[in-house]
Amino acid sequence: MSLLAVGTVAFDAIETPFGKTDKIVGGAATYIAWSSSYFVSPVRIVSVIGDDFHMPELHALENRGVSIEGIKIMKGQKSFFWSGKYHLDMNSRDTLITELNVLENFNPVIPETYQDSEFLMLGNIDPNLQMRVIQQIENRPKLVVMDTMDFWMNTQKDMLLKVIEKIDVLTINDEEARLLSGEYSLVKAARKIIKMGPRFLIIKKGEHGALLFHENSVFSAPALPLEDVFDPTGAGDTFAGGFIGYLAKSKDISFENMKRAVINGSAMASFCVEKFGTERLKNLDTEEIEQRIGDFVDLVQFDISLV
Amino acid sequence: MSLLAVGTVAFDAIETPFGKTDKIVGGAATYIAWSSSYFVSPVRIVSVIGDDFHMPELHALENRGVSIEGIKIMKGQKSFFWSGKYHLDMNSRDTLITELNVLENFNPVIPETYQDSEFLMLGNIDPNLQMRVIQQIENRPKLVVMDTMDFWMNTQKDMLLKVIEKIDVLTINDEEARLLSGEYSLVKAARKIIKMGPRFLIIKKGEHGALLFHENSVFSAPALPLEDVFDPTGAGDTFAGGFIGYLAKSKDISFENMKRAVINGSAMASFCVEKFGTERLKNLDTEEIEQRIGDFVDLVQFDISLV
Repeated sequence: MSLLAVGTVAFDAIETPFGKTDKIVGGAATYIAWSSSYFVSPVRIVSVIGDDFHMPELHALENRGVSIEGIKIMKGQKSFFWSGKYHLDMNSRDTLITELNVLENFNPVIPETYQDSEFLMLGNIDPNLQMRVIQQIENRPKLVVMDTMDFWMNTQKDMLLKVIEKIDVLTINDEEARLLSGEYSLVKAARKIIKMGPRFLIIKKGEHGALLFHENSVFSAPALPLEDVFDPTGAGDTFAGGFIGYLAKSKDISFENMKRAVINGSAMASFCVEKFGTERLKNLDTEEIEQRIGDFVDLVQFDISLV
Repeated sequence: MSLLAVGTVAFDAIETPFGKTDKIVGGAATYIAWSSSYFVSPVRIVSVIGDDFHMPELHALENRGVSIEGIKIMKGQKSFFWSGKYHLDMNSRDTLITELNVLENFNPVIPETYQDSEFLMLGNIDPNLQMRVIQQIENRPKLVVMDTMDFWMNTQKDMLLKVIEKIDVLTINDEEARLLSGEYSLVKAARKIIKMGPRFLIIKKGEHGALLFHENSVFSAPALPLEDVFDPTGAGDTFAGGFIGYLAKSKDISFENMKRAVINGSAMASFCVEKFGTERLKNLDTEEIEQRIGDFVDLVQFDISLV
């Protein structure tokens, strides 16, 4: 199976109650690629960077079977840069700096060699760009997963809804689900959003886990209770990468298998937050990941049949 | 098995985004009794009320096998009264009125006929009163579960810690766990609190479910995603009643069985919030409860072995 990930490859500067970083590598597509690379190969990235980018990070991704052919390098320009500061609860943050730079005139182009990608992950990016990606792909992928955020709901609602109509799985957080649907109850919000097009909806709740909605069913996955959430940056993208990576690996897009994919995504996200940026995602091994999945099983499983 | 519940039997006036009530029957011991009565008999209440109380509610409880012998009626005095208004998120509320009334000079007395109670639920009340209850019981119950709140942590910390030292299971919410331990991370908070005495700690997270901590293990139970949370009043007490009621019924206080008890408590709480006050708890049947337990199984179970 092959996975195409479209999204930002960027620099972040992060401040949390535990410390702060200078410019480090971040971006949705970066996290998606690291995370999914533990499940599926090839992973292909479509993105844009400036010639200021830290190329060893991309080469490290290549070493994990990620194709960077679709990452356009803009000569003489700077990479997208975001800087933010997290509050103590790690669920809220203030954006300190957003420099669009190369993103300002980004026009994603899908290389011919990527056309056979069977799974498509549309990272959080301007819905106009997400739409251009969908339109360029000749054969519809088996599954299209899309992430977005409140900013696009407030500024590009019409185009956002057109994209949402075309995808299979939407991943947003609880506040965004409320904003998009106009419903406070997440059950009501989910019902409305599923009517907008996607057959599956994942509502991410940070430290409270995630809900997967499909038809009249819902699955609840917890987040792993951690001693410390060191840096939540990229946790949602890492979740998405693990989720779609697991589906691509197992070639099964049933609701039952999506539950397992949510657990795999949650496990990957639980690694991500243990260190700054992508650091913790770089040196995982299969055993560690399986151990973490086991922690999730222990965390939620109970045998009610013994009653 | 027999269960002794100590706590308030009171009047509430509640305002939620869905409506408001006049004075209706509430109080921790009332919710605990309704909820546990579906699992165990006899349930025995120790509490105090004024002669203004609505007696048909107590007779309805008697009809479910609840003993009200331990409820002292203070002639010429008024019952405890609380009035509050919930915000849209239903997790936060403003207290509008607190009239202690009979609670001001309450001195709980355990009737001789209650001395053989095997399970003890200490509802949220002044820790000095909780201690007096513990001291009056001649043979230590098989299990003592205790609820408390931030108010006592701020005003009666020393006595609260003395009570916590003597119990088996403490149930508090996430903010209270942080306040009691001085730790933001719930994992760290749980470790500190368990060192204070209780072998088990349940951290209630409202719509986000509950965490059960024991030694180095943790179990996460979701809340059932509901179309509407109509009135959260009493949900925590209803949870506690279902939790300890289930344990009393199954006579098994192992960690594995406590997981099932958490699910049973969560199921009862999910009924409680569907209507104002105790209304929804009055006419449940076993089939409905089993169906709801089944909803929880569907909500969280996944078969990772199929990977």
